[in-house]
Amino acid sequence: MLLAQAPDGVPTITRGDDLAAILVPVLERMSWPDGSTGLADGDVVVVSSKIVSKAEGRLVAARDEAERDSVIEGETVRVVAERARPDGTTLRIVENKLGLVMAAAGVDNSDVPQGTALLLPEDPDASARRLRRGLHARTGVRPAVLVTDTAGRPWRRGVVDMAIGAAGVDVLSDMRGSTDAYGRELRTTVIGVADEIASAAELVKGKVSGRPVAVVRGMGHLVTPDDGEGAASLIRPPEEDMFRHGVADD
Amino acid sequence: MLLAQAPDGVPTITRGDDLAAILVPVLERMSWPDGSTGLADGDVVVVSSKIVSKAEGRLVAARDEAERDSVIEGETVRVVAERARPDGTTLRIVENKLGLVMAAAGVDNSDVPQGTALLLPEDPDASARRLRRGLHARTGVRPAVLVTDTAGRPWRRGVVDMAIGAAGVDVLSDMRGSTDAYGRELRTTVIGVADEIASAAELVKGKVSGRPVAVVRGMGHLVTPDDGEGAASLIRPPEEDMFRHGVADD
Repeated sequence: MLLAQAPDGVPTITRGDDLAAILVPVLERMSWPDGSTGLADGDVVVVSSKIVSKAEGRLVAARDEAERDSVIEGETVRVVAERARPDGTTLRIVENKLGLVMAAAGVDNSDVPQGTALLLPEDPDASARRLRRGLHARTGVRPAVLVTDTAGRPWRRGVVDMAIGAAGVDVLSDMRGSTDAYGRELRTTVIGVADEIASAAELVKGKVSGRPVAVVRGMGHLVTPDDGEGAASLIRPPEEDMFRHGVADD
Repeated sequence: MLLAQAPDGVPTITRGDDLAAILVPVLERMSWPDGSTGLADGDVVVVSSKIVSKAEGRLVAARDEAERDSVIEGETVRVVAERARPDGTTLRIVENKLGLVMAAAGVDNSDVPQGTALLLPEDPDASARRLRRGLHARTGVRPAVLVTDTAGRPWRRGVVDMAIGAAGVDVLSDMRGSTDAYGRELRTTVIGVADEIASAAELVKGKVSGRPVAVVRGMGHLVTPDDGEGAASLIRPPEEDMFRHGVADD
């Protein structure tokens, strides 16, 4: 059984906040169907990158559209595709410094003070490891941590959450070598489990509910004592990337 | 709280099987943390397209690589990208008859008898509606139904599940018009909730566990009396598609 909940009561996070110290009392108030409360070993704590960025002081000035464009440009490594919007602005899908391909390079201007924009954490895997250590130090249990962000997908409408930072959880579940019911080897099935956990967590966190943290229980078989290779390993290397040079359809 | 479980005991499905009749006893054996059993209103029943296809008799002959290629070609509307694999075969990402962009046009040759391949359901939204009606007729409750398949993503390693058929559930959750904590309107946030539910369900179903059905509970706010517009509405229309002509990197 998979269980996921997003506790209420996470306060507004600002620069310099110790996320583990702030989240532990919130997480300890969670109650579970079996009557237990709080975190347990094998839990995956899923945190929106937004509050990680805020704690890490990644808010920058972006007083107008031009400043915001220049912030995005500063985060951009290459443009993958671009298209004119009906309102005259340009939608650019770009690869950012983290290797993530997303609109606006992952620069966020919702739920931030007017005149500012929020950059993604500089090293989300390091952020996840740090939060994992902090949660362990304060609770004695060793959950895994995912840092998530929201992105669109080519060909499909709607955004979904994905893992951009990870500590202590298999981000890919490799089924190759397993055989199907007819004895044939499964050739290509490597499952993006961290992204699936991020999506499950989004369903309980929501976008405007002020619940930036969720706990996913029941995935303990994916949780590891070591921090592991992190979500950076989810990024397809250039030589496997068939959509490296997207072409705008304008 | 979101809960998801994938019951054991779904028998092998073959052509002509009545999926609702076969699944109801399996689903009725599920037990939930609150002590209840079976299905309830507001549940989302998530079914792998594989068993829907098998019930609908979508198995075709594919005795060798050449026949399999010709089956894939028959399902292909256009090639979006292609690349030579190290083993000399060609990996093609194509749009299939349903408008889905995937490798091998969604033609499946794992967990099917030797010498055959399995096509996707001809109309997965109709399959979802039919199963929903059947479940309602047999149980009196009216869950939603998703039919799911597995696909890769550009730029990210690992496959994830997505919804290719839907009945009775909002496939997109439109947050536009909502405001953030600073009073600004959320401009672009339409969430692909059906795909997120499909991903959550995959985490409990798994690929080789013989559990092709999961039930996701706690998403009743997305479940609707009407069958709704289905998963076809998740497909990005050509005029919004910035990756219509992917370019192979060879």
